[in-house]
This record gives sequence, structure tokens and C-alpha cells, in this order.
Amino acid sequence: MKTIGILGGGQLAQLLAYTAYPVGLKTLCFSSEKNCPASRLSSVFIGDLNHVSDLENFAAHVDVITVENENIAPETLKTLAKFKPVYPNLNAIAMAQDRLLEKNYFQKYHIETPRFMPVNTIDDFENAVKNFGKNGILKTRRLGYDGKGQVRITEKTNLAAAWNAISTPAIFESFISFSKEVSILAARNTMGDIVTFPLIENQHAEGILRTSQFLRDDQLENQAKAIVKTVLNSLDYVGLLAIEFFVQNKQLIANEIAPRVHNSGHLTIEGCQISQFEQHLRAITGEPLIAPRIMQAVLMTNIIGQWPDDLSNYQHVYDYGKIPRINRKLGHIITIL
Amino acid sequence: MKTIGILGGGQLAQLLAYTAYPVGLKTLCFSSEKNCPASRLSSVFIGDLNHVSDLENFAAHVDVITVENENIAPETLKTLAKFKPVYPNLNAIAMAQDRLLEKNYFQKYHIETPRFMPVNTIDDFENAVKNFGKNGILKTRRLGYDGKGQVRITEKTNLAAAWNAISTPAIFESFISFSKEVSILAARNTMGDIVTFPLIENQHAEGILRTSQFLRDDQLENQAKAIVKTVLNSLDYVGLLAIEFFVQNKQLIANEIAPRVHNSGHLTIEGCQISQFEQHLRAITGEPLIAPRIMQAVLMTNIIGQWPDDLSNYQHVYDYGKIPRINRKLGHIITIL
Repeated sequence: MKTIGILGGGQLAQLLAYTAYPVGLKTLCFSSEKNCPASRLSSVFIGDLNHVSDLENFAAHVDVITVENENIAPETLKTLAKFKPVYPNLNAIAMAQDRLLEKNYFQKYHIETPRFMPVNTIDDFENAVKNFGKNGILKTRRLGYDGKGQVRITEKTNLAAAWNAISTPAIFESFISFSKEVSILAARNTMGDIVTFPLIENQHAEGILRTSQFLRDDQLENQAKAIVKTVLNSLDYVGLLAIEFFVQNKQLIANEIAPRVHNSGHLTIEGCQISQFEQHLRAITGEPLIAPRIMQAVLMTNIIGQWPDDLSNYQHVYDYGKIPRINRKLGHIITIL
Repeated sequence: MKTIGILGGGQLAQLLAYTAYPVGLKTLCFSSEKNCPASRLSSVFIGDLNHVSDLENFAAHVDVITVENENIAPETLKTLAKFKPVYPNLNAIAMAQDRLLEKNYFQKYHIETPRFMPVNTIDDFENAVKNFGKNGILKTRRLGYDGKGQVRITEKTNLAAAWNAISTPAIFESFISFSKEVSILAARNTMGDIVTFPLIENQHAEGILRTSQFLRDDQLENQAKAIVKTVLNSLDYVGLLAIEFFVQNKQLIANEIAPRVHNSGHLTIEGCQISQFEQHLRAITGEPLIAPRIMQAVLMTNIIGQWPDDLSNYQHVYDYGKIPRINRKLGHIITIL
């Protein structure tokens, strides 16, 4: 039985462990916390990602290594790669963990993005606002998620205060007034085969994903599939990857890349005959990929901050086992539509 | 989040834990072994089923208690029932753990069974053989499984040697030359609602289940459904139950009752829109049951004794994580037909 090493012990690792079971794979999650969410369904390796001896020891227990989170130090990934294959590769993860590198990458491959400028000082910021107008988002280059590390800039914003809230290498993006937000998931295996999942429409509030469902729109889906194939091949990517887009005038504008399984893809467990998680496991273990088909229409709703009182209407309730806290993702529920 | 207490830590507990996850339930498996198969996907409570303090402590951590194995001492079940609901109830489990009580129960409810006689001594045995002919099976009343505790009796058998191999309260059953073996699974919840699963055909070798698949035969299925409803209601049963039958001249002859999820029902995970495991969890937690439908034709093959060299053709591989040993159930694989 092969063992998949996962860097991280959160809900994505938990869901990977759940999906690994019926395909005859074991998981070992690298975490600093014994009682991390993944511990419910997976073995956990307690260690420090900065300690080479921990990394070597972890690698000795697994056959292949993957991540649930792109914010892993490149040095850690380089060290691990000496011992066992690490998928996706360092270049892909390093690009996706830095919004400036990511935007530059999109530009290089002629993938539409919001206009952006790097911002390292208040002067850069004022200059960027002068260029794009006072309607945009100031985002830290690194470590932002779920709306963290972002400040919406409008006519009313005090620029100095906004900069003070960030004060770290950042980018300023022009604001996109979108009609929809969508994501595409796709996987590429070690042989270079690619499969794409059906297009998914997402709704966010306060920067946090709230709901996802399939969007049947061939024109948009074809655009998204072409882009994601370019990305997978250009990065020599192995594993599952998600790209989030804004839709404006029926055109896709790339927002960001997640080099891992993605919250918007949770609905593939019930919605498709193959889930994003199983596809990722197949990709990184060199198995043939399976072309996803929609099996039923489903709605994924994230549980944020607190659980609803009554869950009896939902057949599928994923509880990550986390202590409730404001704006924290505690679980998700699936409604068969 | 409710926690289901499961007495046992084998593969049935492992599969219950797997299925509990996406319906928002936790599991705690009572086992004497820290590294039992269930430990891969479930919390484990290490204890001794004969120690009242262990039982009380276990019960304090769970909301409802169920079993993965019918061979639990009645005293243990009685003690646990003082603290938390135990499903199925003691009467059902006590009946199903004793082949004589089980056969008497079938007779009482006019459910066809092989002819049988209790056998406590060599004299009883010789008398039974005289009655039914030298073509039958001598079975221990208790603790038999996977062909253990059984001796096939034919014209060639030395009766004294056969009795010596058993030498414990037993029954002698006349041999049924069957055309097929089938099983029916059904669940009854705390409100008394019942649902039945589609009929399943099973193939055994050396007393061990080898393969299962759905059998589309309305006449047999209707017979089986009528019988299983009688059984569930007469026992005031809560949970999932399986009955195994021989088929002879298009009639069902009851072989045995399993008061728990059953190996022949593993295919319901891929084959139905609701699995036997989720149905059991719904039944014992007082949720509405879901009428099972076949979603796709599937074949379940048990992995016995050793793993095949090449598993790459199977999408679904359940590895219980057990050390290979002759005639041991190590896992099962599902083929989509």
C-alpha cells in the first residue's frame, strides 16, 4: 500500500485522506499539531517544516509528497525533493505563493488579468492609484487567504491608512466589476496526461468562498479549459490545480492559481463520478486520469464561523472538527439539487 | 457533532468510520488493540469489554452505541445500555449469536430453514445423523464465522472425529443443495421505519464470502423483503441487518442473520445512492431512512489471504490494513460492471 505524504493537516488534507481510503492509499500528514483536522482520518507526522531531520524522517515514511497549502518555504520543498518526489513542483508552488510572480506569469502566457502594479512603498502605492484610479484592491504578495491581507480601495479610502494596514511587499490591482466568479479544476499526471473538470461558479462574501455549483456555459468552459491546459503544460505541473477567474463581458479574467485541491472543487465528491481529491492522488501516483462527468447537480455551501442549528435537511455534512471562530471554515454541506 | 460508539475495531468499524465522515458523525471504536484496522479512520478507545469501568468511560464519550460483531457478551451489552442507547438491542444480538436460538426463531416466525437438531453430545449427533441422513453440517452454536466451527458431514465422515473437532454445544443441519446464495439487507430506524436494499447474490468458497453482486429477481427479492420486514419488526430492531439465504427451487431457505452491517453489502457504497453503512448510521441516530436505488452494476470481490500483484484495473480498492494470513479478509475491490 502506497503512502501519500501531505504537508499540512487541515481540511484539505482531511478530505484527501478520506478519498485515499477507497483507492487503497494511505496518507501521512505533516503537521505541528497532533489534533489537526486531518488527524481524524489520517496518520499524522508531528514535526517542524524547518527541521531537515524531520523532513528526512517524514520522507522515509512516504512514497510521494504533496501539499494542501501553497505557503511552504521553497527550502523545505527543495529538501524534501532530495528524498522523494514532490508534486506539484517547486516552481509551480513558488509562483502561486506570490501574487506578483503569479500576475507576471499570467502576462507572460497572455492570460488576461486585472491590471496590476507592484507596491513596496507608500510612494509606489500612490503612483499605482494615480495610474489605475482609486478603485482597486491592495493585496499582500504573500500569505493572503480568505480575504486576509487585502484592502479594498475606493474613492473614500485614506491611502496612508490602507498602506499601513498592509506594509509589506504588495500589489495594487484595478477592481474588476464582474458578472460572475468561476473556477476551473484540472489535473495532469506524471505521464503528462490532462483532464479538466466541469466549470464551477462561485460566490464569495467578505473574500471568503460561500457557495459553489456547476455552471453550464460551454463558451466560458472552453476558454477556461484552454487556459488551464496552457498553465499545466507550461509549468510541467503534476497534480490537481485550480484557477479562479472573474467573468466580465463573457470573458475570463484570471484572478489566482491554487496549486492544490480547492474549496470550490469539494462538490466533485458528490457531483462527479471522480472527485478532485481522487484525481489528484491518481495524478501524483502516476495512475491514468479519469475524465470527469457530472453525475448530479449539487450545491456546496461552506459553513463559516458557526454551524446552523438544524442540519437535518442535508444528506452530506463534512465537519472538519475545528473550533468555531469568526470567519473560520468549519465544514461544508452538499445539497443535491 | 454526534459520536457513534462502535464495539470492535475491525474492517466493518473501519468502513462505518469512513461513511460516518461525510454525514457529520464521529466514531469511537472500542478495541483492545491500538492499531486495529479501524484506527486508520477513527478514534479508538482502548479497553476491555469485561471491565465495567471501561464500559462506563466509553459510554461517556459517545451518543449511541452499536456493534460490528454479534459476539459480544450479553452482560457487556446490558451494562452499556444503562448509560447510552445500544442498537441493535440485546435480544436481537443474543439470538443472532447462537445458531440454535436463531433457528428456533426462524421456526417461530414460519421462516423456512434447513432441518436442524441441537447436538450436545456424540449421542445427540449420531441421533441427528440418523434422522436427517449423513449429509449435513455440524456447526458450533456460537462464535463460528467464515467457515470456522463447521464440519461438513458426508457418507465418508467419521462421526466421532467430526464431533471431536467441535465438542461444544452445536447443531446439526441437513445439507441444502442450493442453486444460489443470496442476502437481503434492510434497516429499521428508531421510529420504526423500514427500508430494504436490492437483493444480492453471493458466492462462497471454503465457507468464506468471495464475491457479491446485485441479483435482479423480483420473485426472490419480494420473498426476501417480506421475511426481513417480519424479522425487523418482531425484534423491534434498530439498525441495519442482513439475512443470508439458500435458494432451492426458487424458494428462500434462511441460513443466518447478521445483526450488523454485512460483507455482502460493501458493494452498496458504489452500487447504490446510499450505502448500508450510512443507512445503519441514520437508523441508529433516528434520522429518516433513504430508499436505496441501484446506481450502477458492480461486483465486490473479497481479497482473502493475499493481495493480487496488480490492482491497477480496479478503481475502488479497500485495504483494511491487516497483516496477510491464510483465509484472512484483507480488503475488497469493486469492479464497475
